[in-house]
Amino acid sequence: MEFRIASDELKKALYRAQGIVERKTTMPILANVLLTANKGSVTVTAFDLDIGVVSEHSADVSKPGAVTLSAKYVFDIVQNLPDAEVTLKKLANNYVDISSGSAHFKIVGMAAEEYPKLPKEENAPLVQISGNVLLEMIKKTQFAISSDETRYILNGVFFEPQASGKVRMVATDGHRLSLIEREMKGDFKLKSGVIIPRKGLMELKRLLDEAPDAECHLGFAENSALFKKPGLTMVMRLIDGQFPEYQRVIPKEGEKVVLVPKTRLLEGLKRIALLSADKSNAIRIGLEKGKLLITASNPDLGEARDALDVDYQGNDITIGFNARYLMDVLGVTDTDEVSFELGDEHSPGVLHGPGDRSFTAVVMPMRV
Amino acid sequence: MEFRIASDELKKALYRAQGIVERKTTMPILANVLLTANKGSVTVTAFDLDIGVVSEHSADVSKPGAVTLSAKYVFDIVQNLPDAEVTLKKLANNYVDISSGSAHFKIVGMAAEEYPKLPKEENAPLVQISGNVLLEMIKKTQFAISSDETRYILNGVFFEPQASGKVRMVATDGHRLSLIEREMKGDFKLKSGVIIPRKGLMELKRLLDEAPDAECHLGFAENSALFKKPGLTMVMRLIDGQFPEYQRVIPKEGEKVVLVPKTRLLEGLKRIALLSADKSNAIRIGLEKGKLLITASNPDLGEARDALDVDYQGNDITIGFNARYLMDVLGVTDTDEVSFELGDEHSPGVLHGPGDRSFTAVVMPMRV
Repeated sequence: MEFRIASDELKKALYRAQGIVERKTTMPILANVLLTANKGSVTVTAFDLDIGVVSEHSADVSKPGAVTLSAKYVFDIVQNLPDAEVTLKKLANNYVDISSGSAHFKIVGMAAEEYPKLPKEENAPLVQISGNVLLEMIKKTQFAISSDETRYILNGVFFEPQASGKVRMVATDGHRLSLIEREMKGDFKLKSGVIIPRKGLMELKRLLDEAPDAECHLGFAENSALFKKPGLTMVMRLIDGQFPEYQRVIPKEGEKVVLVPKTRLLEGLKRIALLSADKSNAIRIGLEKGKLLITASNPDLGEARDALDVDYQGNDITIGFNARYLMDVLGVTDTDEVSFELGDEHSPGVLHGPGDRSFTAVVMPMRV
Repeated sequence: MEFRIASDELKKALYRAQGIVERKTTMPILANVLLTANKGSVTVTAFDLDIGVVSEHSADVSKPGAVTLSAKYVFDIVQNLPDAEVTLKKLANNYVDISSGSAHFKIVGMAAEEYPKLPKEENAPLVQISGNVLLEMIKKTQFAISSDETRYILNGVFFEPQASGKVRMVATDGHRLSLIEREMKGDFKLKSGVIIPRKGLMELKRLLDEAPDAECHLGFAENSALFKKPGLTMVMRLIDGQFPEYQRVIPKEGEKVVLVPKTRLLEGLKRIALLSADKSNAIRIGLEKGKLLITASNPDLGEARDALDVDYQGNDITIGFNARYLMDVLGVTDTDEVSFELGDEHSPGVLHGPGDRSFTAVVMPMRV
């Protein structure tokens, strides 16, 4: 194996690998990337047995071949090369010579043959999608994914194509839920929804963020997802199981609905949550004539309150919430105003855009 | 106590306190700042029993008085106020009402009488100094301060006025030394040099960074230092003891001297150090005809080398160094070229500007 490549291209490929490779693993080769030099191009593969990313880059290949190298160390080296080009050459015993300008490195590698094989996903029916739409859907659901590893079904986002040519994505951790529905035309040939795991989703987000306008394709086969964009293929294992019946936790319409300026509410929550007890982020939302109140108290620190003018004429009510959950939703809301629906102190709060439930978040109340 | 103040002014005062106050202390009041409202102004004092900063800000005081409040929590609150102004009012039991626009906080405080008294430093003969010069001197010595708490004499920078109207500042940790001499006219009335502790120096740097062009005064009395600039007074206890005879470790002139492009050497060290063994940053500097070589090897990773063209005609030599120590020096060097003096493999390396030893760094060799 011997090839010359633009340093920036190799850096880009290795950057893509950083989130995938496992550093603390019982299989040391999983800390490596697989470099494969073909005629005129080089592929860089990262794989953690669940998620695989294959990145293809044009290169001046003088000798095809393959080897694996530490993803971390080679990335560090490539970020510090003196020259715009770099030559990689496999030596005996899987050593690799990396040369760029005046700098020369001879790095210990491992045999390409030992690298685990990625699943082949030729059968996935690919659907052309908008990278920007998928990116939006990820951003508006990821925060509600459960971190509780004992509830592995909730450690991802439910991806559910609708009959209408739209796709719904839903995440919930049992305390809150986020749902978004966006147009995504094409037949994914799925009998039901699938669950995309958090790590895969985060890597997908990173790849989409690189160039959201690039042509993207997404498909599913058996229990895997396949994502493609020019020069890049990603495969990932999906979470195997039945996502809970999320519709049941979304109240149809709250009894008490107020329209609130988003930034004002977000800032109010942020400052009042500073006085929440025990870092639980527990605050109280109150409604009274013409006002939305945010209050918190902490026996060690003191108490805090803020008030927003809102159009409300109903009975007084106070409901406890985790301020963090409300802030997560408001932080990804694009509209200037948000519709905040409340029931009684045992009912969840619902947030969505004014007159638009295509992005809806549900936050369970808490005893404060 | 009751006063109204610009939120940004109070934020500035509390920012200054953040580095001083101790969060993990057996004296809880040391996590607080002392707020004192006098006629037309408010002072905010932070003190850790060694370093004290008193910050004075104009305010609309309706009732003079004093109280202490958590430096951290009040800073968090003040950073999140809705309005450009804030009113603080002491209530019963040292509670303080903080109001700004729609937001109200009632915070637990502690009695001002319990706050420890800062030492009075009226006797220090103050010398007007240039903030920019002092800032430069701190930046060019701080990295060589020892972190070894058993060598407390080395946990600071030696400040030594010279007969020439200059001041020398020196730091060393036994493995390297940094010395800078700059003009600082005025009589500090010191019999010998004093040792300024690291924490105090870092806080001084932060205060100088705010506005390096402000009029600054520095003075010493007994075992304390006093620093003043408009609206700010800082006192700090100095390290008590005899700084080592640093002149003895500075070689007069190395046998082998090369002029090296600074950025090129810095980048070369950075990339080659990636392959140093065991994160010791151990690299080798070699000189041979026309070349300066940087090499490193790591049994687990491989090896690396880089070469710079230099004007050198002497014998071949290779000396081990900690790359981090050399990079620290080059990172604060202002000149495009640096004079690098080497002896044999047991002799320290010396770095300074071409033809200018007013900023000189000495780095001990290491066995590689």
